[in-house]
Amino acid sequence: MFKLLCRDGRARRGEYITAHGTIQTPVFMNVGTNAAIKGGLSATDLAAVGCQVELSNTYHLALRPGAEIVRSLGGLHRFMRWDGPILTDSGGFQVFSLATLRKITEEGVSFASHIDGRRLFMGPEESMAVQSALGSDVAMAFDECVANPSPRDYVAASCARTARWLVRCRDELARLNALPGAVTPTQDLWGINQGGTYADLRIEHMRAIAALELPGYAIGGLAVGEPTETMYGIIDAVEPHMPPDRPRYLMGVGTPGNIIEAVWRGVDFFDCVLPARNARHGHLYTRDGRINLNNKKYEADPLPADPACGCPVCQKFSRAYLRHLLKADEVLGLRLCVAHNLWFYNDLMAQIRLAVEEGRMSDFRGRWAERLDRRI
Amino acid sequence: MFKLLCRDGRARRGEYITAHGTIQTPVFMNVGTNAAIKGGLSATDLAAVGCQVELSNTYHLALRPGAEIVRSLGGLHRFMRWDGPILTDSGGFQVFSLATLRKITEEGVSFASHIDGRRLFMGPEESMAVQSALGSDVAMAFDECVANPSPRDYVAASCARTARWLVRCRDELARLNALPGAVTPTQDLWGINQGGTYADLRIEHMRAIAALELPGYAIGGLAVGEPTETMYGIIDAVEPHMPPDRPRYLMGVGTPGNIIEAVWRGVDFFDCVLPARNARHGHLYTRDGRINLNNKKYEADPLPADPACGCPVCQKFSRAYLRHLLKADEVLGLRLCVAHNLWFYNDLMAQIRLAVEEGRMSDFRGRWAERLDRRI
Repeated sequence: MFKLLCRDGRARRGEYITAHGTIQTPVFMNVGTNAAIKGGLSATDLAAVGCQVELSNTYHLALRPGAEIVRSLGGLHRFMRWDGPILTDSGGFQVFSLATLRKITEEGVSFASHIDGRRLFMGPEESMAVQSALGSDVAMAFDECVANPSPRDYVAASCARTARWLVRCRDELARLNALPGAVTPTQDLWGINQGGTYADLRIEHMRAIAALELPGYAIGGLAVGEPTETMYGIIDAVEPHMPPDRPRYLMGVGTPGNIIEAVWRGVDFFDCVLPARNARHGHLYTRDGRINLNNKKYEADPLPADPACGCPVCQKFSRAYLRHLLKADEVLGLRLCVAHNLWFYNDLMAQIRLAVEEGRMSDFRGRWAERLDRRI
Repeated sequence: MFKLLCRDGRARRGEYITAHGTIQTPVFMNVGTNAAIKGGLSATDLAAVGCQVELSNTYHLALRPGAEIVRSLGGLHRFMRWDGPILTDSGGFQVFSLATLRKITEEGVSFASHIDGRRLFMGPEESMAVQSALGSDVAMAFDECVANPSPRDYVAASCARTARWLVRCRDELARLNALPGAVTPTQDLWGINQGGTYADLRIEHMRAIAALELPGYAIGGLAVGEPTETMYGIIDAVEPHMPPDRPRYLMGVGTPGNIIEAVWRGVDFFDCVLPARNARHGHLYTRDGRINLNNKKYEADPLPADPACGCPVCQKFSRAYLRHLLKADEVLGLRLCVAHNLWFYNDLMAQIRLAVEEGRMSDFRGRWAERLDRRI
């Protein structure tokens, strides 16, 4: 259940209540695709970097270890020992981005596993069955995520099908939640807006899915190739048609600047693999922009990654040590860099929440949106 | 400084006092070759798995990041943020096992770096310079480690040279410790016994180096290809000639059973990459022997790796989760498995210490030496 606490322009400060705790929004969800954070962070480390919500993936976990195994072990919370809220992506995006030999019908999608080529099928019911077995707090609707740009006719037909799939998702999850032994019987379903880069299709689809009065809505199919300004334009177009009393989740976005701009436009939830991917390449976020530890000038630098940072990594380790670990291919380097970047993202959200509460979001945006995205 | 607290047969219970804390022996040193534990464990994790002494490598750190960089950052303790005792291996073994195009002279060894092929030279003085810059608590002598078996004549000549090198190591480290700005001016030098599998050469060499009255002595050049019984035979032959009031370190050994057998024969210090290597392959130590998480029977197993284990990993995570992480190539799997295996080794040493104190070492050995080495 979502509680809107206050607004600053279109930016919102809220709370989303789940059986595993209350999420303060705007929030960044920390990505643990395979029920594990990249770089070797455990659930305990997640708490230490200020994570509020963990995000896992239906497609990946359905393939490995399999939903029924996770269910038999008490669900995802117990499996990975994360007691806080979990959102699971539906597998829709991965079926379209990772799997091969796809065939889409009204029923769903048949495809070949990217791991072993085995032939599989996933439709709305299958996605809900997996997410119910995982027992996440929020299940995402099974949708088709089209590439940008795609032909208008194809996008329109795809949106209509995704809307029909949403009804099936809702009915199936309601049925699963009511079964005795449901892992998380309070599991919520969030709908996903699609429509490519066609503002009118986006709006039409948003209105259609808003009518289902689901507990949350996402904007999907952005940050998949279109220019950033196009993405902001779509958010501007769709947002007025999203129910104001439900959380809004911009899927797979983005840089710190993207997040500030999207909060400014009324978005509450985010997730992105960028902090982990940048960490892997030695790119660490700081208040002055992104530093690159591969730069030789950090070879003997005794300073922490960001001297202004309060994260556990910056309390202990120097740039020189982190750089050495990355150069020596020690996974500790990856782990510490991921921890720093996730802390940075989670802390950014805490600062955004404060700015919204105090009516300083315009100033905050002007000061930080471009600065944090710089490479220095 | 070593304090022998008590004996049980030839097994010894002692303390080794360093500027960074007192080590209770017998002890297993946890290997962090590149100033990092394999699998992404940080110095904080090391403490959590019961580590008393960390071991880093002169050869690796001289190549990357370079000794002067570590010195400029305050030495190895500060660089990796491990406040406990550190022993550094001299680089001798690695020059002979990793580097290529070696040429040995009385001066030392010229070789090509295994990283970038760059031509380098290391002799007793260079090894001491690096170890002094790293600021470990114990520096190991620069020696030649011959393969087993090697021709007797070669081994005899090599031993004589290693003994001459030891005098140079001692003189050079004394000089470096006395310099203003020495990182760890109390740095101790331990000598290394060589002699291949020739008991008489071993004894002769041991007597020669014992005459230098160094603060500790190692048996090197074992567990490099010879049968286990040969190794035990060499320990039996050499041990009576090692100064009883100095610690004995059996380099690079071994399995839990090997360690129990060597403690039984009077050894105090150990190090080995086996716990980490086994962890990488999903082989976890338990009180009943070694389990292999790749076995499908663990796919949905809710038990911890070892239900009798008190380690942080076994307090939280199931075999099924660990197996999933390894299968999904998540480095968290590696990290948790390494942590469990290191805890197992460190805990084994704690149990050994208690058995020696209580005069139960014969019983302990009979009960555990073979059992712990089983694959189940």
